[in-house]
Amino acid sequence: MLEPVLRHIDNGLEESIGRWSELLRIPSVSTDPAYEPSMRKAAQWLQDQLAPLGFNVDIRETEGHPVVIGHHPGPGGDATHVLYYGHYDVQPPDPLEEWDNEPFEPTLVDGPHGRRMVARGAVDDKGQLMMWFEALRAWHAEHGDLPVAVTVLLEGEEEVGSRNLRPVLERYRDELAADVCVVSDTAMWDIDTPALTYTLRGLLYTELTCRGPGHDLHSGFYGGAVCNPLNALSRVLGALQDDSGRIRIPGFYDDVVEPSEEELSDWRSLNMDEEGFLASAGLSTSGGGETDRSLLERTWSRPSCDINGIIGGFTGAGAKTVIPREASAKVSFRLVPDQDPERVIEAFRQFIDDNTPAGCTIDLRIDSAAPAIRIPTTSPYLRAAKKALGSVYDREALLLGCGGSIPIAAWARDILGIDTLLMGFSLADDGMHSPNEKFEVTCFHRGIRAHAALLEELRQQ
Amino acid sequence: MLEPVLRHIDNGLEESIGRWSELLRIPSVSTDPAYEPSMRKAAQWLQDQLAPLGFNVDIRETEGHPVVIGHHPGPGGDATHVLYYGHYDVQPPDPLEEWDNEPFEPTLVDGPHGRRMVARGAVDDKGQLMMWFEALRAWHAEHGDLPVAVTVLLEGEEEVGSRNLRPVLERYRDELAADVCVVSDTAMWDIDTPALTYTLRGLLYTELTCRGPGHDLHSGFYGGAVCNPLNALSRVLGALQDDSGRIRIPGFYDDVVEPSEEELSDWRSLNMDEEGFLASAGLSTSGGGETDRSLLERTWSRPSCDINGIIGGFTGAGAKTVIPREASAKVSFRLVPDQDPERVIEAFRQFIDDNTPAGCTIDLRIDSAAPAIRIPTTSPYLRAAKKALGSVYDREALLLGCGGSIPIAAWARDILGIDTLLMGFSLADDGMHSPNEKFEVTCFHRGIRAHAALLEELRQQ
Repeated sequence: MLEPVLRHIDNGLEESIGRWSELLRIPSVSTDPAYEPSMRKAAQWLQDQLAPLGFNVDIRETEGHPVVIGHHPGPGGDATHVLYYGHYDVQPPDPLEEWDNEPFEPTLVDGPHGRRMVARGAVDDKGQLMMWFEALRAWHAEHGDLPVAVTVLLEGEEEVGSRNLRPVLERYRDELAADVCVVSDTAMWDIDTPALTYTLRGLLYTELTCRGPGHDLHSGFYGGAVCNPLNALSRVLGALQDDSGRIRIPGFYDDVVEPSEEELSDWRSLNMDEEGFLASAGLSTSGGGETDRSLLERTWSRPSCDINGIIGGFTGAGAKTVIPREASAKVSFRLVPDQDPERVIEAFRQFIDDNTPAGCTIDLRIDSAAPAIRIPTTSPYLRAAKKALGSVYDREALLLGCGGSIPIAAWARDILGIDTLLMGFSLADDGMHSPNEKFEVTCFHRGIRAHAALLEELRQQ
Repeated sequence: MLEPVLRHIDNGLEESIGRWSELLRIPSVSTDPAYEPSMRKAAQWLQDQLAPLGFNVDIRETEGHPVVIGHHPGPGGDATHVLYYGHYDVQPPDPLEEWDNEPFEPTLVDGPHGRRMVARGAVDDKGQLMMWFEALRAWHAEHGDLPVAVTVLLEGEEEVGSRNLRPVLERYRDELAADVCVVSDTAMWDIDTPALTYTLRGLLYTELTCRGPGHDLHSGFYGGAVCNPLNALSRVLGALQDDSGRIRIPGFYDDVVEPSEEELSDWRSLNMDEEGFLASAGLSTSGGGETDRSLLERTWSRPSCDINGIIGGFTGAGAKTVIPREASAKVSFRLVPDQDPERVIEAFRQFIDDNTPAGCTIDLRIDSAAPAIRIPTTSPYLRAAKKALGSVYDREALLLGCGGSIPIAAWARDILGIDTLLMGFSLADDGMHSPNEKFEVTCFHRGIRAHAALLEELRQQ
């Protein structure tokens, strides 16, 4: 049944690109309340796409942005039931001045691998979710049905830590029951080598607000007599890592599982191009510490700490001799198995209290907290996906780790009791979260084919 | 000759307040290029005020904002020659939302000491310079002349470190020759106790820019593998002080002169209200370190380090998992005798280099650098000022230190070879550089009288 579907995909590529562009034109930035109407518009657009394929689909409210949930019965009987997950929200486009085109005016430009789509969300996650969307559409067009039972769950808060995803999964637990969850939000090894991701880091995202004087002060009259919130905040943040890059929060590494010798050996055999990886970041040397470990090891199996933003005091042009009354920072941690976010939060809170200089206070607010995930390599669904990828790419799919965080994977396991297939098609230089984010049309096209092939494998299971 | 002048001052107070308000209405913020037309308007206003008093006055260009220079021959003969200095620029008014009135719409409100003027620059330095302005005006009105030869120098860059004042003093060295410099930009002890300031801290104002990746990165994929400029900057800034508040830059304290036992004894006898001082900052405890020293000692005789601003990464509402490509901070040091700004700059540069983590670079830009000052207590002009203040306040003027920085004092000594009388009338709670900056009308009025009395003393010298 696959062949006509693949032909349909090949012949309909330009139409698929057209629909992808429509979705990219909707500026669905979840973190900024100003974009709220666009969030709703994106959810509506997705509902409108699913309904004609025979989905019973609607938009459900949450305490934040809505989710789109759709059901397709498939062929009935004991067909496999697949839960597709994707997110329709994107990162903010700033800094705007660094884009070559308008971030929400999707633009096809020529690159070394042919055409590429440049837009915010080109890959993350609109480009990736459109691949399984288009595979379902092609199957439906050719066969008037789908080969498996399908539930679709699309959220609008992945870029802000999936705050309301857990409540949604708990609330609709029975309705979302399935055999396996399929997600496209990860990377390939390179443009010709497909990959499945079996580990993901978790994410703890926090905000610190440091307060000192009751109002801004003149640093001449008060300098040396009062606690400056910027000095205090820098002191706490500067103490987070030691010279070797290790995070200095007591107990932070207590539950960290070291990768097995076998894993380390597998990773070494990948012969990762560290230079190329760094070059994709505009760098010639690594940084951030733990230099006794490889970059794969550091990003796949080690926790990290990044300050994502700091603001305080006078930041305009020129000089102002001010001691500001407050300053704030966004600080996030990537977590690995078996770190418990709640335990890390408590340790971080204690660390802040222990390091805050007298005369200032620091409040810690938790924005989101999700644990790391590790998917068993023995899963039959993983085998099916490997086979599907192998048939499209004529090359064996690799099993990779990933430094990023996809909360659905952990919660699908914990709440729905199912594994998640992380079958993604992005490349290291796609610039996710950066200006000029792009997605190769070649990846998009082969990704749709691979999702169709996966449907065929799951049909036979 | 003083009595009619004092009467003129008393009777003309409302007109003086009116002129003061006119000057306050001009938003002469020197640090922001957007206010450049207002800078010129303020210089023009000052010129227009001086000319009718018989000054030969004009506006001179610099590489930044212009200076106003005026000359009045006085009575001729061997009359004392006074160089009055003031600055017509003010600090930026932000944060605007914390003002009770428009910062450039001067407003008289009632307070515990009677009327007070609320506006940006109410005291610093427009209110203070208007006092000697109004004293000269009253003297001229009563006697048709001035009792001493007067040169006026008004600059527009004090709040941005007096970048072009030194070149101006060097260029017009002969023209600016005088016997003594008089400045009103300092504080009283309290509203009934006049004071002369004999030490000032210097100011070194710098900006650090930390750069890492070539573009913003996703903290999931790169976290732990690359140097995050915000982590690196925090590390350097957080290392600047130790737990006891001492600045950790090697050699920083090498040239610091400890106050003499006599000075310490004098300061102790002032019985400073430390609680009240802290309360004026909205605080109940001190901070910033060196807790084994009194607050007077710390702000008058000890160097300090304050971070005046930091910005980098995502600072909007919500979360963004970004590793920014750059981050920057404004860092300033208050210097004391005999610290050499150039030596401190070199030590700071070395400290930054030594503490910057691999994978990032930090550039240091020097915004301004001025040494501390100490005026000999044996100066005859200081005696004259003490006498003048005593006659107006019926109380002996105290000799105080000051934690702030007034570059003219050091450069008048170094370039013009003269001492500076720092006779100021601000109060600790005036909120210089803060929202709702104010100046008591009582201070303003008595300050004009004191300046008239000083003219009388200098006339007789």
